[in-house]
Amino acid sequence: MSYGSDDIDAGVCERHVVLVRPEIHWNTGNIGRTCLATGSFLHVVKPMSFSLDSREVKRAGLDYWKNVKLHLWEDFDCFINGMEPDDGEIMVLSKRGATPFWLMPRPARLFLIFGSETRGLPEDIFQQYAKATFYIPITAGIRSLNLSTAAGIALYESLRFSKPFHAWSASAGDR
Amino acid sequence: MSYGSDDIDAGVCERHVVLVRPEIHWNTGNIGRTCLATGSFLHVVKPMSFSLDSREVKRAGLDYWKNVKLHLWEDFDCFINGMEPDDGEIMVLSKRGATPFWLMPRPARLFLIFGSETRGLPEDIFQQYAKATFYIPITAGIRSLNLSTAAGIALYESLRFSKPFHAWSASAGDR
Repeated sequence: MSYGSDDIDAGVCERHVVLVRPEIHWNTGNIGRTCLATGSFLHVVKPMSFSLDSREVKRAGLDYWKNVKLHLWEDFDCFINGMEPDDGEIMVLSKRGATPFWLMPRPARLFLIFGSETRGLPEDIFQQYAKATFYIPITAGIRSLNLSTAAGIALYESLRFSKPFHAWSASAGDR
Repeated sequence: MSYGSDDIDAGVCERHVVLVRPEIHWNTGNIGRTCLATGSFLHVVKPMSFSLDSREVKRAGLDYWKNVKLHLWEDFDCFINGMEPDDGEIMVLSKRGATPFWLMPRPARLFLIFGSETRGLPEDIFQQYAKATFYIPITAGIRSLNLSTAAGIALYESLRFSKPFHAWSASAGDR
């Protein structure tokens, strides 16, 4: 049994990861890899603290980076105006979120919004979507999860009822 | 509403991440961070391709690395003999796994086993636990998820019915 990425590209589950002002190239590169793994789109909202052409992003994204379905936006308003998400299609991830991420809604099209590694999301954006904020639980032992880890966790949670898309069958022999 | 890490430490959900022959210090460091986030234990099965004292592990794990509940094992048999997991407490993660990870069992004590970044799990270990192999679905667009991303996804899935443990309430003001 094998499924190609076209199952997701066909629109059954359209997923978008949105990074607002990301600071660490490695995280953005690795999130691009996770987006490719799931047929998802990656949006980066400027300003960034690094170049997307940097050697490090390419290294973190391995040879896949050129295939990432990437959108660059000058600011958050440009993103909203460009993509026109419905209110129910926006989900903000923050440790200050109102609801555990396991309870997230899963509309056909969904935008998962993440703030920067050290500063989180700008307060006005957080407040604008206060009712659509979700947290990944963490103990008092750390201040936050790594951004690329959090993005992977939330993105896969959003896909738990998607059409199957695994392309590496048990019999393929490649690990 | 706020929960401390003691809820998990008390044994409601005892989780162990087991890295067999990891190769990339950053991944091990970041997985340590995710383990701390969830009150989980980290096991590293030798040989490793790096030193756990290296500057890079500490940097990736930020200032938390010293707090990671870490076990080092000379080989996989030492790990098995030391921890004595029941068959139902072992779960092998591999893209060649038999079952989607969303269908994993969630016993009170669970060991999530991961192979190395480039070579996967040794074939004899994979075959020994063939019935307990699980995959995180990925499209044909990439060969694998980043190891620390995969560990985060699987670990949080294993905790979806755990007692609440989020320590950063919405009112804390810290993001």
